[in-house]
Amino acid sequence: MRAFATHPAARGLTDDAAVLEIGTETLVLTQDSMVEGIHYLAGQDMADVAWKLAATNLSDLAAKGAKPSGVLYTHMLGADDDRFIDGLAEVLAEYDVPLLGGDTVAANGPRCFSLTAIGRATFTPVPSRSGSCPGEAVYLTGPVGAAMMGFEALQGGTDHDTTAYRRPRPLLAQGRALAPLVSAMMDVSDGVLLDARRLAEASGVTISIDSASVPIAAPEARRADALRWGDDYQLLFTGAEDTAWPVPVYKIGMVEARARHVLLVDGMPPDPDDALGYHHAR
Amino acid sequence: MRAFATHPAARGLTDDAAVLEIGTETLVLTQDSMVEGIHYLAGQDMADVAWKLAATNLSDLAAKGAKPSGVLYTHMLGADDDRFIDGLAEVLAEYDVPLLGGDTVAANGPRCFSLTAIGRATFTPVPSRSGSCPGEAVYLTGPVGAAMMGFEALQGGTDHDTTAYRRPRPLLAQGRALAPLVSAMMDVSDGVLLDARRLAEASGVTISIDSASVPIAAPEARRADALRWGDDYQLLFTGAEDTAWPVPVYKIGMVEARARHVLLVDGMPPDPDDALGYHHAR
Repeated sequence: MRAFATHPAARGLTDDAAVLEIGTETLVLTQDSMVEGIHYLAGQDMADVAWKLAATNLSDLAAKGAKPSGVLYTHMLGADDDRFIDGLAEVLAEYDVPLLGGDTVAANGPRCFSLTAIGRATFTPVPSRSGSCPGEAVYLTGPVGAAMMGFEALQGGTDHDTTAYRRPRPLLAQGRALAPLVSAMMDVSDGVLLDARRLAEASGVTISIDSASVPIAAPEARRADALRWGDDYQLLFTGAEDTAWPVPVYKIGMVEARARHVLLVDGMPPDPDDALGYHHAR
Repeated sequence: MRAFATHPAARGLTDDAAVLEIGTETLVLTQDSMVEGIHYLAGQDMADVAWKLAATNLSDLAAKGAKPSGVLYTHMLGADDDRFIDGLAEVLAEYDVPLLGGDTVAANGPRCFSLTAIGRATFTPVPSRSGSCPGEAVYLTGPVGAAMMGFEALQGGTDHDTTAYRRPRPLLAQGRALAPLVSAMMDVSDGVLLDARRLAEASGVTISIDSASVPIAAPEARRADALRWGDDYQLLFTGAEDTAWPVPVYKIGMVEARARHVLLVDGMPPDPDDALGYHHAR
């Protein structure tokens, strides 16, 4: 994969949303996909799959403080197409986002759905991942772990409510409220620790997380797992500690000058074998 | 498929590009996909697949007179990823279009690539498919059939040049030049006759095509096939006959008041069993 990942044309393929200036407007664009057997399992309610596909893209806009203008998506026809469309209609109605267009394809084999969301920046400069400065605090908008608990219930292990896993909620209002005040922001899609490391890498700083201060929606015994599970789509951001935050926030750590380790958890570098969260194909 | 196709949320999934007004800007967005085994064959040069994926989307922008601002795409990892990226880099460089971002996914089974192109309208109102009026002429920007000849050569039947099929050229400059002057415009992706019928349907008119006047890049004996083959991406449009067209155009028919038949070819309705061109899944 090295040849691919280092190709100049592939460098644009980060999981971060794109910012595009057109005339006097600043747009935010993001494209995410869900593949059967990878991002969802055959047999899952396709309405939930559609919801999640749209919600994860809208969450990328939330992290940029953008207001969604619409989505386009590619629908690979197959079983339960009407359920998929039901779920898509529900999530788009919930967040008042128009379906602008897209493509329908017929194919055999595992299905793949791609969705592009476009939004209008409500504040410029648009929050990036690279603005964290030493001395700032690290915050989270809410607890993590609810999606993990929901996933495990779906797998049949518990009777925990599964909504958080099936129907994540993009924090669009919170993102817009925070955008003018943060130094850097991203959504937590792959785990608090992994995404905190990405923020630290992008900003050229060290981030030190106090694991006990991370709010979790899971039993205390599962704290370590909750910090490594994605799919909760809370917003992770940094800013001055004396900021009057307009929405509830939880301080979970500090930004420090870049030291030997990019990420510290309770003052220690994580074990090199600790994946910290969910890693994508690249 | 009826339940799916008639669902309110599915109505946005036309193959036409979307027009989005954001602030003072008018944007054009399109998303098309290519699936292995459906839109391309395993074993094809992945650089050609990437070129075509981008070119077909850019062609949708061309038909709207839009200047491309960038693309996002989803790359399903597999064989020859570096060739794919080579081809994508080539087509984006050729048309000076930035890669804004996208997603990389790993999966088994047939691969699927989705690409979204976004452009800025250079003329408003943006040309639609619904503006054709009786008395206007029907035009094409150039010959059709070259992609068919290239496809057949690729299949091993001939030694004809295959470039037209492998690397179609979106007519971006022509689309921008024509946009202020046309009453309706679309790109020919599925065959001149089929797309002419779509234009007539969208405009509520009858279109009468003089088949002998359609320029073809194929032997005369293949004229009927050339009129039913897609992939050439010429622009099909209507307008007043006394227009001083800024680019070479070929008159291929007339717009008439809606009569019993939506499409006439040489004065006759096509045989109901004549598919007229390539039909998508819906």
